Amino acid sequence: MAAMKIGVLGTGMVGQAIASRLVDLGHEVVMGGREATNPKAVGWAADRLRGRAGTFADAAAHAELVVNATAGVASLAVLSSAGGSAILDGKVLIDVANPLDFSNGMPPRLSVANTDSLGEQIQRAYPAVRVVKTLNTVNANIMVEPRLLPGPHAMFIAGDDAGAKELTTGLLHEFGWPPESIIDLGGIQAARGMEMYLPLWLSIMGAQQTVNFNINVVR
Amino acid sequence: MAAMKIGVLGTGMVGQAIASRLVDLGHEVVMGGREATNPKAVGWAADRLRGRAGTFADAAAHAELVVNATAGVASLAVLSSAGGSAILDGKVLIDVANPLDFSNGMPPRLSVANTDSLGEQIQRAYPAVRVVKTLNTVNANIMVEPRLLPGPHAMFIAGDDAGAKELTTGLLHEFGWPPESIIDLGGIQAARGMEMYLPLWLSIMGAQQTVNFNINVVR
Repeated sequence: MAAMKIGVLGTGMVGQAIASRLVDLGHEVVMGGREATNPKAVGWAADRLRGRAGTFADAAAHAELVVNATAGVASLAVLSSAGGSAILDGKVLIDVANPLDFSNGMPPRLSVANTDSLGEQIQRAYPAVRVVKTLNTVNANIMVEPRLLPGPHAMFIAGDDAGAKELTTGLLHEFGWPPESIIDLGGIQAARGMEMYLPLWLSIMGAQQTVNFNINVVR
Repeated sequence: MAAMKIGVLGTGMVGQAIASRLVDLGHEVVMGGREATNPKAVGWAADRLRGRAGTFADAAAHAELVVNATAGVASLAVLSSAGGSAILDGKVLIDVANPLDFSNGMPPRLSVANTDSLGEQIQRAYPAVRVVKTLNTVNANIMVEPRLLPGPHAMFIAGDDAGAKELTTGLLHEFGWPPESIIDLGGIQAARGMEMYLPLWLSIMGAQQTVNFNINVVR
């Protein structure tokens, strides 16, 4: 895959893991935070030739492809402060966020579920953005290094734009997801199931006391 | 496992699959429906020495162990018409139902989700019933014949009563679920994740055009 200009929105564990992996793969990455001086993003960029820190708007303006790695409950506000339609329209947006709401304690609730999903909300808010939901069903380190787990295991992908899914699938391959592990669930509405899987993921994490796991579809 | 008196509530595909398997394993089963003359239950019983058809109340009264294989949106009403606390208290109730609501078309919604689950609702309605959630994450034929799928794949179990989970685990072994495939997710609150997995299950079914699949936890 040719090197791309990628904006990673979010400076947390997921944003750092994805941005680092993308830089290692040769892509030009701007990691966006609320403020350009976000110490996590600045510290990250200091170690990297092809990585830069900036605001959400800087990251989005730089990007041919945007990765939403913000907390799901903040994602819509972040996309707005990143510049909204004027900046995002026509671009591929890979949404890896989960709308987990910890404000009522554990276990977290989903802030949107059942009849809607974050992926669908983003697509509705920005009809001309090419939204692809993927990677939200595994921990950050598994996202970018699936070989950490033995044998085959599944990565789901959903979105309304076939070309955007193809581009995203190419990136997943670069991360190490083999073609046969990638399961296309169809349109962005399938983000619903991918996000509603999170409570089961959290229960399995609790039972097995590890975040390093994934599911494989056996048939 | 010694033969048990088991009441299976529900005469649909899931109830038929479970009741048939239990009879084959030597258990004494009453399959309960809304009416004792339910043709599906009567037809089922006609072929079986150790199987009988009856009302929900007949099945519950007969049972040492009750299996809730009704439609999730009807389950609480069924348990009430089966006799409620007077009949059910102290018994193990294996809840395999999913609260799928098809009244708004496809995909179905869950009638309860996110901050609650059917398993929890049943346990709250009947505090002295020993509720165990399991088997709801696979199709009926996989429930009772896990060897239909190759290699290891997971069966989750959740409930507040350790003895009830032990008894249920014994039944799962009889069905063919090997010990290492059974993942205890803890208390009945984990039913939330097990039920909220259904939308993902439905998406996978749609993408792969088969109901004969399950997930394995890879770590």
